[in-house]
Amino acid sequence: MFGFDDRIQFRNTKNDILTVGELLIDMISTEYGDHSEGNTYTKLFGGSPSNIALNVKKLGINSLVASAVGEDGLGSFLIDQLRNADIDTNGVQRTDYSTSMVVITKSKSSPVPIFYRGADYQLAFTPVLEEYLIRSKIVHFSSWPISMMPVRHTIEKVIEKARENEVLIGFDPNYHPMIWQKGEDGIEYVKSIIGKVDIIKPSEDDAERLFGKDTNENQVKKFLEYGAKLVILTLGKDGAIVSNGVETIKYSTLATDVVDTTGAGDAFWSGFYTAIIKGYTIREALALGFAVSAYQLKFTGAIVDLPKLEILQERYGL
Amino acid sequence: MFGFDDRIQFRNTKNDILTVGELLIDMISTEYGDHSEGNTYTKLFGGSPSNIALNVKKLGINSLVASAVGEDGLGSFLIDQLRNADIDTNGVQRTDYSTSMVVITKSKSSPVPIFYRGADYQLAFTPVLEEYLIRSKIVHFSSWPISMMPVRHTIEKVIEKARENEVLIGFDPNYHPMIWQKGEDGIEYVKSIIGKVDIIKPSEDDAERLFGKDTNENQVKKFLEYGAKLVILTLGKDGAIVSNGVETIKYSTLATDVVDTTGAGDAFWSGFYTAIIKGYTIREALALGFAVSAYQLKFTGAIVDLPKLEILQERYGL
Repeated sequence: MFGFDDRIQFRNTKNDILTVGELLIDMISTEYGDHSEGNTYTKLFGGSPSNIALNVKKLGINSLVASAVGEDGLGSFLIDQLRNADIDTNGVQRTDYSTSMVVITKSKSSPVPIFYRGADYQLAFTPVLEEYLIRSKIVHFSSWPISMMPVRHTIEKVIEKARENEVLIGFDPNYHPMIWQKGEDGIEYVKSIIGKVDIIKPSEDDAERLFGKDTNENQVKKFLEYGAKLVILTLGKDGAIVSNGVETIKYSTLATDVVDTTGAGDAFWSGFYTAIIKGYTIREALALGFAVSAYQLKFTGAIVDLPKLEILQERYGL
Repeated sequence: MFGFDDRIQFRNTKNDILTVGELLIDMISTEYGDHSEGNTYTKLFGGSPSNIALNVKKLGINSLVASAVGEDGLGSFLIDQLRNADIDTNGVQRTDYSTSMVVITKSKSSPVPIFYRGADYQLAFTPVLEEYLIRSKIVHFSSWPISMMPVRHTIEKVIEKARENEVLIGFDPNYHPMIWQKGEDGIEYVKSIIGKVDIIKPSEDDAERLFGKDTNENQVKKFLEYGAKLVILTLGKDGAIVSNGVETIKYSTLATDVVDTTGAGDAFWSGFYTAIIKGYTIREALALGFAVSAYQLKFTGAIVDLPKLEILQERYGL
């Protein structure tokens, strides 16, 4: 059980967090989306776990990534970006599939991403991946790698090995039917994973996609019934509800001005993970996660030049 | 046999040419390719057969397209572009795969395209496609749709029905290992198609990828041995060699200034097809094809505002 005033005791390992899964290109339109020939798009480093790996480094802990990119220029670009951030790139596998990409045309209503999945779902469970996992305190993944074969097998092995080696497992249940293998029920599979991980952070939308519409309290209850140990249900501007199955806490948002919500969830994860590694209690770490998220919301884009966690702690009076 | 001074007798049909296959997004970098975060790309209408469908319309004949795009914004953009060019879009199928895309980062050496195939290879042989085919004089396709299942089956049916209905078949053997189904020998399959079509236009590179390095004359001979009826081997600035198995003609290039080679091959096809439909002899149609290609070479991009064929005929003194 995760007592809110407990500090998590980690094994003494060389690395802090390993993120497994999508490392990809975000191709984002510079204009708002009409259908004109000649519209331009900006190429950006992307993939939620990869963003977390970059973020936590800035906040003050170590990270490794295990991902697959293509033997192509976009794959080389992504690897260069990791290298520039001083992250070991030996965990990035090259495959003969194209580097995965998400194309987003900005829209005044809700932008609809288009998914181009190639290399990312070819990630194999290699000896390097296993070694990275064993020398990490936390492993994190999202719904991307469980949504397709063969990488789903890799995640299943990651979960098994993480359990054996007491590596804490964080899971982002950002299920979306568009990324899932055609003709397969992704919802049932995501539900089957919930009980196998330690910490889960659904958004309201994630919860609704998995369980249908319901009150926030009931949604939290459902994740707990499926075996989740710590559920962090984020509610956008309305903060979050967190439960360990015994106690439930509500958090108000710390965000004062919201410029762009891109990457806010990853910023939360980054602050939370950094804080539990640094020995803060769960309660403190949650507050620090929301502080990093609030900071991120003031800027545009998924990658923001985050300061050290302690600076944000002071800035938000935590 | 295609006698060089013969005019092809077509059936009296409502439509002139049907192009089958890739309708996709070309995402082309605006800068020359370094690996910087934030580089921009331009979204363009693309796919060689789709470009031919647009070109011949400008040159003065009718065209239809049979293609598959995604149920997404990029698919809608492509359909809008066809509609703007006054091309019937009932032959464009919508699928729940992402609209196919080619990403090209400009390079001082040779730019390496990255292929994102989704919707394009889901093209089905529908009653609409069959009807389009039967009411056309010519059907054209490239190596894209034969490179993957299930669209390969669609092309096999197209060939069969075209034969039954005396529709002339043009094939662009632009084989590239990167577009082919993994683990499959594309070269053997392309070779097996050569004898089933009427007109084939390999470039030097295409010939080398299929048959290895050899003299131009020998390459032409190999296509003929595989059953090709009219072989047009294009040699870039060195013109072309054309053979019907009995007689072989050399053509010099008509290009005077070359700004961009993008789309030059499709421009040739477009001019040639337009000319044979308009009743020119094969010899004249070849010259007109090279004239359209020479005109295209003076401009940037795959889509150029081509004048009517007769205007180009006069301009190039043919």
